[in-house]
Amino acid sequence: MRRFSVSSVEQRVSLITLGVEDVARSRAFYEALGWRGQETEETVFFQAGALAIVLWACDKLAADAGIDDAGVERFAGIALAHNVRQQAEFDDIIAVAVRAGATLTAPAHTTFYGGYAGYFRDPDGHVWEVAHNPGFTLDDHGGLQLPDFGAEG
Amino acid sequence: MRRFSVSSVEQRVSLITLGVEDVARSRAFYEALGWRGQETEETVFFQAGALAIVLWACDKLAADAGIDDAGVERFAGIALAHNVRQQAEFDDIIAVAVRAGATLTAPAHTTFYGGYAGYFRDPDGHVWEVAHNPGFTLDDHGGLQLPDFGAEG
Repeated sequence: MRRFSVSSVEQRVSLITLGVEDVARSRAFYEALGWRGQETEETVFFQAGALAIVLWACDKLAADAGIDDAGVERFAGIALAHNVRQQAEFDDIIAVAVRAGATLTAPAHTTFYGGYAGYFRDPDGHVWEVAHNPGFTLDDHGGLQLPDFGAEG
Repeated sequence: MRRFSVSSVEQRVSLITLGVEDVARSRAFYEALGWRGQETEETVFFQAGALAIVLWACDKLAADAGIDDAGVERFAGIALAHNVRQQAEFDDIIAVAVRAGATLTAPAHTTFYGGYAGYFRDPDGHVWEVAHNPGFTLDDHGGLQLPDFGAEG
């Protein structure tokens, strides 16, 4: 049930996910900077202006992105995310990226949080996730607002 | 002439700098996504919501950040930036980061654009720049607004 199609990718970033060795250690680091986050599913989310910075185990991020954590592709443990408002936009965005020269590393797949995600790399190997997460709000300007995850982790 | 001091780092990101092999190739990639940027000083800036994504030669970024581009530290060619409103905040922010466990890779230095910058790495090696750029506007929420660089590159 496609409502519309897109021919380009909105010029924005929704999440910056830092792949980390030890989530607790990294959370402690960012909290020592004065930041306050919320932990859910062994992942820490920091609302940072109109986007979110996410701490997640590097091996899980690499696996999720379909990228070898320590292999020749030198996964850097960082991923940028572009969240879309509707699942209908998803395939078009991926198609635009692939036409632009992106390498798809993880085709579209449903996620444990009831969403939909896929990953590609840009020509230098920088990792982008395209995601639809029905629990995250995107404002009119594409700014992402995290939900209240219910409890401080 | 310090006007105030800070004891924590605001919870936000101002720039995402992607270290790239070939700026023109990377710009073409992002433009093929439908993005429009401005080029100045062999650097491409894309306004992306309340932050900017920057394409810059990886070797220059590594050198600027005081990080070995291809060595044991495995520089990933990506840096997050935290821009401050006044140079007076700068040293305090760096001090907070170092106390939190950051490793300073490039001490505070003046920049060619009339600003001030330094870099640190977090415990996993993720690269952060702290910068004061008098030409970039930060809104009340810390959102960064690029200036008009004067000409499309």
